[in-house]
Amino acid sequence: MTGTLTVVGLGPSGTDFTTPSVLKALEEATDVVGYFTYVDRLPPAGPHQRRHASDNRVEIERARVALSLAAEGRRVVVVSGGDPGVFAMAAAVFEALEYGEPGWRALDVRVEPGITAMLAAAALAGAPLGGDFCAISLSDNLKSWATIERRLTAAAEGDFAIAIYNPASRARPEQLGRAFDLLRRCKPAETVVLFVRAAGSSEAALDITTLGAADHTKADMRTLIIVGSSQTRLIERADQTPWVYTPRSEQVRAS
Amino acid sequence: MTGTLTVVGLGPSGTDFTTPSVLKALEEATDVVGYFTYVDRLPPAGPHQRRHASDNRVEIERARVALSLAAEGRRVVVVSGGDPGVFAMAAAVFEALEYGEPGWRALDVRVEPGITAMLAAAALAGAPLGGDFCAISLSDNLKSWATIERRLTAAAEGDFAIAIYNPASRARPEQLGRAFDLLRRCKPAETVVLFVRAAGSSEAALDITTLGAADHTKADMRTLIIVGSSQTRLIERADQTPWVYTPRSEQVRAS
Repeated sequence: MTGTLTVVGLGPSGTDFTTPSVLKALEEATDVVGYFTYVDRLPPAGPHQRRHASDNRVEIERARVALSLAAEGRRVVVVSGGDPGVFAMAAAVFEALEYGEPGWRALDVRVEPGITAMLAAAALAGAPLGGDFCAISLSDNLKSWATIERRLTAAAEGDFAIAIYNPASRARPEQLGRAFDLLRRCKPAETVVLFVRAAGSSEAALDITTLGAADHTKADMRTLIIVGSSQTRLIERADQTPWVYTPRSEQVRAS
Repeated sequence: MTGTLTVVGLGPSGTDFTTPSVLKALEEATDVVGYFTYVDRLPPAGPHQRRHASDNRVEIERARVALSLAAEGRRVVVVSGGDPGVFAMAAAVFEALEYGEPGWRALDVRVEPGITAMLAAAALAGAPLGGDFCAISLSDNLKSWATIERRLTAAAEGDFAIAIYNPASRARPEQLGRAFDLLRRCKPAETVVLFVRAAGSSEAALDITTLGAADHTKADMRTLIIVGSSQTRLIERADQTPWVYTPRSEQVRAS
């Protein structure tokens, strides 16, 4: 088998955040596989390239299609938003690989990194992930809620800043509220909380609040939440949105 | 004041991972401020652009220089490797801003995200950060070792995959060993550990080992360490490096 499969991340929106390395992989691809939303963001395909867009939510199935095409000798790219290795397609591809055709292990499978949502969201606010931090997906489609609670508790005990992916969907409207309730029991009410919607796009929106006041109903599928550490702070500005950052040191010193 | 200051991340190496948005900011800059290593990675400057490279390790001082230039009305870019908001220059700029000239708060200060080291390192190995994960800097220049131990312990208790930045330097040769010792007390000896050196560059190297066998003396300033969660696993291949990934689900099912 001489086919290749490259799992790429387009970044948060459009292609302004897509790396040259990813654009090159896309140019060279004979086949591009992905969710409609991501395939639609790509520049038009040349005549040599087939596109396999689907609204299939079964990511493993999409991964198997991509691996089968690569096994036929095609040069396949699987597109994700953000970074493919962070709550996206790369893990699904390796899962399909591990439990799929033994011959697939001879394929040239690579991952090309992208700007994941929390980095774009943090950049919009300032530098809230400037100290140690965690990334937690709130989706319990693939793991138990008990595991999510265990991780939120540990993140609070470690005083990490916390980036919360997949905070809410139509099928899971209440889980962010439960997460905030848990965090309110372990962190001060004045802890900085950010709701960042559609970071990196022209519709990007930042809402700065506190853990005490955070309203979970304001989040949707395009929102990323950042809960600050004890050190996360605001820099107030006249008539403008404050900047939010987490100092690198535990005790900020004027210098 | 009409000056601007944009803190950008070049990604892990060269400019193959530098976003179009960052390249545009660099093109439009009248002044580029940064550590020699990063300024040297940039394409040659046009005649309109001044470059202020330094080997100054006092990041706050560099941030103040950049803010002063912006306050003079210049269009300033501060360059970081990786992502500027992850253990890099963005937090230093906001620290300098908060404790600096009050007039600096009127400046247009922005952050442009980049591919941070752990994403490039994870992509090289497969998808080891495919589940929930933490990022911890092992440098105790700016925080206490007690805080680092508290965070490593919490990360182990939460069964996160752990990306360890700044695992070692000439001044701190022993801390990664202490971190491994701590983790060995809370996680199984067979936990997957990755040493990834110079991810994203032509000298990139991946060493796959276990927590029981991990040798801290193999890390240097260009190494990023990933310690797996309990779910992180290898996909073995004939005559090739295994892929390493963390499944999205707690219990992988053949599908």
